[in-house]
Amino acid sequence: MAFPKQVRLVEVGPRDGLQNEPNLIDTATKLELIDRLGAAGIGYIEAASFVSPKWVPQMADHRDVMTGLKRRQGVTYAALTPNLKGLEAALECGVEEVAVFGAASEAFSQKNINCSVAESLERFAPVLERAKQANVRVRGYVSCVLGCPYEGEIAPAKVAEVSKALYEMGCYEVSLGDTIGVGTPLKAKRMIDAVRREIPIDKLAAHFHDTYGQALANLYAVLEEGIGVVDSSVAGLGGCPYAKGASGNVASEDVVYLLNGLGIDTGIELDRLAETGTWITQTIGRPNRSKVGVALAAK
Amino acid sequence: MAFPKQVRLVEVGPRDGLQNEPNLIDTATKLELIDRLGAAGIGYIEAASFVSPKWVPQMADHRDVMTGLKRRQGVTYAALTPNLKGLEAALECGVEEVAVFGAASEAFSQKNINCSVAESLERFAPVLERAKQANVRVRGYVSCVLGCPYEGEIAPAKVAEVSKALYEMGCYEVSLGDTIGVGTPLKAKRMIDAVRREIPIDKLAAHFHDTYGQALANLYAVLEEGIGVVDSSVAGLGGCPYAKGASGNVASEDVVYLLNGLGIDTGIELDRLAETGTWITQTIGRPNRSKVGVALAAK
Repeated sequence: MAFPKQVRLVEVGPRDGLQNEPNLIDTATKLELIDRLGAAGIGYIEAASFVSPKWVPQMADHRDVMTGLKRRQGVTYAALTPNLKGLEAALECGVEEVAVFGAASEAFSQKNINCSVAESLERFAPVLERAKQANVRVRGYVSCVLGCPYEGEIAPAKVAEVSKALYEMGCYEVSLGDTIGVGTPLKAKRMIDAVRREIPIDKLAAHFHDTYGQALANLYAVLEEGIGVVDSSVAGLGGCPYAKGASGNVASEDVVYLLNGLGIDTGIELDRLAETGTWITQTIGRPNRSKVGVALAAK
Repeated sequence: MAFPKQVRLVEVGPRDGLQNEPNLIDTATKLELIDRLGAAGIGYIEAASFVSPKWVPQMADHRDVMTGLKRRQGVTYAALTPNLKGLEAALECGVEEVAVFGAASEAFSQKNINCSVAESLERFAPVLERAKQANVRVRGYVSCVLGCPYEGEIAPAKVAEVSKALYEMGCYEVSLGDTIGVGTPLKAKRMIDAVRREIPIDKLAAHFHDTYGQALANLYAVLEEGIGVVDSSVAGLGGCPYAKGASGNVASEDVVYLLNGLGIDTGIELDRLAETGTWITQTIGRPNRSKVGVALAAK
């Protein structure tokens, strides 16, 4: 047992959580969500995605979000920038940190962005170069680290290979995503074991989905391995596009409850976070997928 | 790491899961549920509760359930019998195994059954004696092992004390219940550590509720300690009476998915179990609280 003393939460609700919402959410609501998350003590918020509105209409207001947010001291506001065009737009909005998104599955990469994993990495090279020039840090995501909706099993070695490539290209941190939430604890540990042979454990983040209810068990297992950064989404915002009606991102409230119980500091006020989850789900008319959120609201 | 090779699931859906349902569920539905669970490979089903229909109207048909069920080879059909009267009635129905229900919290015992923990144990003595005469095994439950809705924190030593008393009175197994689902993994481990000093670990079962989403993380932690019996409820049937609308028992499907991923054998067919969860929740008009059940149904 070597739990980290502190864990940093990366809140992905405003981006990963909202991006698949069918009804357009107004910018003011997004800004209020981001502000409430910061007020609850979240130190890192992925606020927008600079992708074409043709592909992700929900993120079409990325400029208004990035320039409209009330910056709080100690909070990082990041944006997803899959290509140079997106990065330039994000830089114009004064973004301080961005992210790129790779996959550990060839089939997923082909179906999702119509190129091989290697080609996708090549496309990120100019993004990382330009970001470095602009003194903007880049976070790397790897999807399908514990399974792929098309390929099924994914070899830990493949995850390690893609993660290493992102790290060597200059990503300061690599977030390992169980995109379809199929992983279980031993599988998660084996995957982390493979990746940490290539990248220091303190440069890795766990991004787990709760589609099969395993996210917190998996997190507990990788916290035992020393993982110190966890991606999550308030109220579990964001479903699973591969199983309609099923859960997506693990809920931030449930993660904080787990960490509190393990004596791990996050700097987050759970009650305020839970109130934020209740508020946003009521505002956009979605079920609250945080069990902690539901339990606290019912008390 | 010393995971057990096999884990026995104790399915409590037909009793613990249904007992708080406000609308009376007809006996035929209960019997079909029990039969489907057995067909899915569940080896132990808590089928009814021999309590006064005044207190638990939903269990008023306990005789019809116990005498009406189609017994399958290799499946144990048990009943809750809180007192001698209940036990006698259960014996008349040919019950092969029964259970008694104690608490690790004085306040919970007082509010729930209007007597102290010690007095409740005294009341069980004749039940255990009579069961022994009748050659019927008795399982002991201890509630509030990780927290109490009235007292808050519960000392692991108190859980160990009550568990030991039940074991010494003749309970062949003691099921440790996180009745309000507030536990987290380290707390669960510490509690198990205290109890195993008094009772062999292979005589203990984990009965975790998912009210705060922690049940599977807690289960993973106590499986690491060597716990080999897990109580759960198909589709997560049964809410939390202390937080209306919140989750109660951990879902059997989610537990089986976790165990499958850990390479632990249960003898259960997950697909058939998930179909049973979908069927019963549709039949009684309740949300399916198994994430595995929802994800598999959505595929």
